[in-house]
Amino acid sequence: MQEITQLHAIFDRTRGYINHFMGIIQPIIDAAQDEHTRLYYHHILEEEEQRLGRLQELIPYLEKVSEKETLAELSDRELSQMLSDVNLERFGLHNFREHLELSLYEFQDEETRQTLDGMREKTHADYLQVKEIMASLSERFSDGSRPDLTDHDEGHDIHQVDHLKASASAANGVASVIKHSAPAKAVSGKKGLTVGSLKGL
Amino acid sequence: MQEITQLHAIFDRTRGYINHFMGIIQPIIDAAQDEHTRLYYHHILEEEEQRLGRLQELIPYLEKVSEKETLAELSDRELSQMLSDVNLERFGLHNFREHLELSLYEFQDEETRQTLDGMREKTHADYLQVKEIMASLSERFSDGSRPDLTDHDEGHDIHQVDHLKASASAANGVASVIKHSAPAKAVSGKKGLTVGSLKGL
Repeated sequence: MQEITQLHAIFDRTRGYINHFMGIIQPIIDAAQDEHTRLYYHHILEEEEQRLGRLQELIPYLEKVSEKETLAELSDRELSQMLSDVNLERFGLHNFREHLELSLYEFQDEETRQTLDGMREKTHADYLQVKEIMASLSERFSDGSRPDLTDHDEGHDIHQVDHLKASASAANGVASVIKHSAPAKAVSGKKGLTVGSLKGL
Repeated sequence: MQEITQLHAIFDRTRGYINHFMGIIQPIIDAAQDEHTRLYYHHILEEEEQRLGRLQELIPYLEKVSEKETLAELSDRELSQMLSDVNLERFGLHNFREHLELSLYEFQDEETRQTLDGMREKTHADYLQVKEIMASLSERFSDGSRPDLTDHDEGHDIHQVDHLKASASAANGVASVIKHSAPAKAVSGKKGLTVGSLKGL
């Protein structure tokens, strides 16, 4: 059950990152001088809120599963559903990495940039680890039909770009007009109808 | 089963829209002069590719369900899973609407702007209809625990903004340097591991 414990740790960490990231981005939305900037960061935040909603259901579920003696205690259907949910969050980690990279182009102050880049680096490592764990789990439990775990972003040069470096010379964004001395507001995850909340239907 | 037929039609339409949208956006990525612009549109396209992958599984499933005599032929678990999948795509429609709105700020030519705005308008209507259908389905089939179908974006003024109007005076984006006379390239949906493809595990 080591893999399930690892998955639990990864998604618990990324949940913390979402909250941290929201605290960094919300002031940009509040200070935005035009509708495009406002929509842009609002959109990114909304996607992360949706991810947070799903994780709020997945994390306790993984915790419960990790307490079992063996994965054999799950039915085929439960196992398949769990892998499917984890796979959705594998994409979620990938997309979060890109949200972090995109945000690097907004911030000029070194402290925020290092925070974003640190989360980016760890998120990418977590993404790769989830991929490995899924390969291992599906190998042991599938009926022979192995999932295709190829990076779906393979062949896209953009993923080889060092965005920390590339963003260093980017034009000042709206972030330059907000006060960085103010403590980042923690945004409470507004919870609407989530995939997970429907599971109890 | 009228609702299932409606859902099928909505997701079939949005699948067509994704392909159309990809054809409009790919030239922007190809013509991008800086890494930020490239990453930005690449990111949007990747999210739509992920959605396309999920829809490729959901649409045939809905078609199969729509052929049944009654939803009572589905087990509670199957119904709950279907509602959960549809709900994820409800968020998907919402996010697609925002991708379309964000793209309005890139294009200056009236034809592309009208195409994007037309898809935006229909996508928003589809989003609202999916919400209504879900309310109806969950009312009839839930065990009393009604899902919270509040718009999770409620209270965000940004959704009241007319982005077609707001984007009319936006600065020229990279779109202004690409040839609009060239037929939009259809991008084949690169299919990696999708949630749906795992269902067969």
